[in-house]
Amino acid sequence: MRVEVAVSAAEAASFTMQGSVAVVIDVLRATTVITTAIANGAVACYPVVEVEEAFALANEIRKNNSDLRVLLSGERGAVLIPGFDLANSPLEFTTAAVSSAHIVMTTSNGTRALVAARGAEFAYIACLRNAATVARALGDYPQVILICSGTADRADISDFLAAGAIITELATAGVSLELSDLAAICYAYYDPLTLNQRIRASFHGQRLLGLGLGDDLDYCCQLNVSDTLPVFDGHRITPKS
Amino acid sequence: MRVEVAVSAAEAASFTMQGSVAVVIDVLRATTVITTAIANGAVACYPVVEVEEAFALANEIRKNNSDLRVLLSGERGAVLIPGFDLANSPLEFTTAAVSSAHIVMTTSNGTRALVAARGAEFAYIACLRNAATVARALGDYPQVILICSGTADRADISDFLAAGAIITELATAGVSLELSDLAAICYAYYDPLTLNQRIRASFHGQRLLGLGLGDDLDYCCQLNVSDTLPVFDGHRITPKS
Repeated sequence: MRVEVAVSAAEAASFTMQGSVAVVIDVLRATTVITTAIANGAVACYPVVEVEEAFALANEIRKNNSDLRVLLSGERGAVLIPGFDLANSPLEFTTAAVSSAHIVMTTSNGTRALVAARGAEFAYIACLRNAATVARALGDYPQVILICSGTADRADISDFLAAGAIITELATAGVSLELSDLAAICYAYYDPLTLNQRIRASFHGQRLLGLGLGDDLDYCCQLNVSDTLPVFDGHRITPKS
Repeated sequence: MRVEVAVSAAEAASFTMQGSVAVVIDVLRATTVITTAIANGAVACYPVVEVEEAFALANEIRKNNSDLRVLLSGERGAVLIPGFDLANSPLEFTTAAVSSAHIVMTTSNGTRALVAARGAEFAYIACLRNAATVARALGDYPQVILICSGTADRADISDFLAAGAIITELATAGVSLELSDLAAICYAYYDPLTLNQRIRASFHGQRLLGLGLGDDLDYCCQLNVSDTLPVFDGHRITPKS
C-alpha cells in the first residue's frame, strides 16, 4: 500500500485523488464530531463550505421530505453560527440530540478537506477515536491519501498524530507499506504516550484550552475507542454498511 | 524566538515573510551546493528560476565587467543543462572550479524557495553541513521562518532534518523558542543518529542513489562541518561579512 499525507486542506487541493482512497482527518474537531454523530445514530452528515449553502441544503432536504429531522451544525472561530442547532463540540452530539437526524454541517477547515477528497474513489472519516477502525477498513487498498485538515492552512499536530496512528495500525497489522516522506515523518513522530500532552501544547490545543474547552480536548484525544466508520461519497457521510 | 516551518516552496509562497528572517533549506542539493560554492571562494551566487533568465543574467554580468569570471550552474531532473558549466553536484564546486567566480544558478526546487524568501528582511542559506552555524547567526531574532524547499511541492525528509537540526541547536543554546506545530514536529522528528539512514530511504535519497549519486548523498548528509554562512539579499547570495 502506497500511503501519502497532505499537511493541510490547502495542500490536499494539489493532490491527484483519482484512483485513491482518501482519509479525511480533522481531530479538532470536525471529524471527531462526525464520527460521534454517526456513532450516536445520525443518518447522514452533509458537509458544505459556506453558511448560506448550509441553510439552502437544509431547506432542500426538508422540502423533499418534511418528516426528516434536519439539523444545522457548524462553527466559525470555534463559536456557534446564528440560526444553527449545534456548534462543533462533539459533546453536544449526544444520542438524544442527533439520533435519526440529517445534519448539514459547515466548519472552518474540515469541510474544505472533505471537498478536497471529492476526487477520490471514496473517503473515510477519521479521528483519533476511530483510527484503528479506519486502518482495518483500508485493508490492502493500493493507494491511500491521508488528508490532514490542518488549521488556517498550516499543519496541526493533532491531525499528524491521527495520521501517524493509522499508519502505525497498518504497520502493526503487517500491511506492506510504501510511505511518502511526510507519511514516514508522521509514522516516526507518532507516540501514543505523549499524544495528549503534545495536542495540549499545540496551537489549536492552546486555543481550545483558552476557550475553556478542555473537556472537548480530552474527548478528541481518546485513542481507538470507537468502531464507527463514517464514509463520504462526495456528497454526504453515512455509516459504512 | 518564534519559529515557523514551511513544508515546501509551494507552501512558503503563502507565508507572510515581512518582519522575519528566512532560512532557505534544500539539502538535496541546491543549498548544499551554494554553501560549498561560497566556502570554496565563489564571490556570489545568483539564483534564477528559468534557464533563459540564467543565460540573460550571465550575459548582463559579463557586459558590465568583462574581467569577471561568470559560471552557469543548474539541473533539470538532476541532469546538467546544455550550455551550462556545472550541474548540481556539490562535489563539482571545488576551489579550482569556483574560486572568485560569479555563479548564476537555476535548480528545480531550491530556487523557488529562494524566490519565496524575497519578502523577508534577509535570508540565510542552510543545509546540514552548516546547520549549527546558521543557528548561531539567528541569535535572538524574534521571528524566523525555515523554508524547506521540498521536492515536487511535497515534503522532503532531508529538509525536515535540517530544520530540526537548526531548531535543536537553538534549543541547546538556551534560546527561548515558540514553535509552530510543524516546527515542533521537526524538532521531535530530528535524530542525528538516524539522519543518514532516513535520507537514504527517502524519496529524493532513493532517486539520487538510483542515479549513482551516493557520494553526493554522503556529502550532503555531513552534519555541522562548515562555518560558512551564505546570505541572500533578494538578488544574490554572498558570504556573510
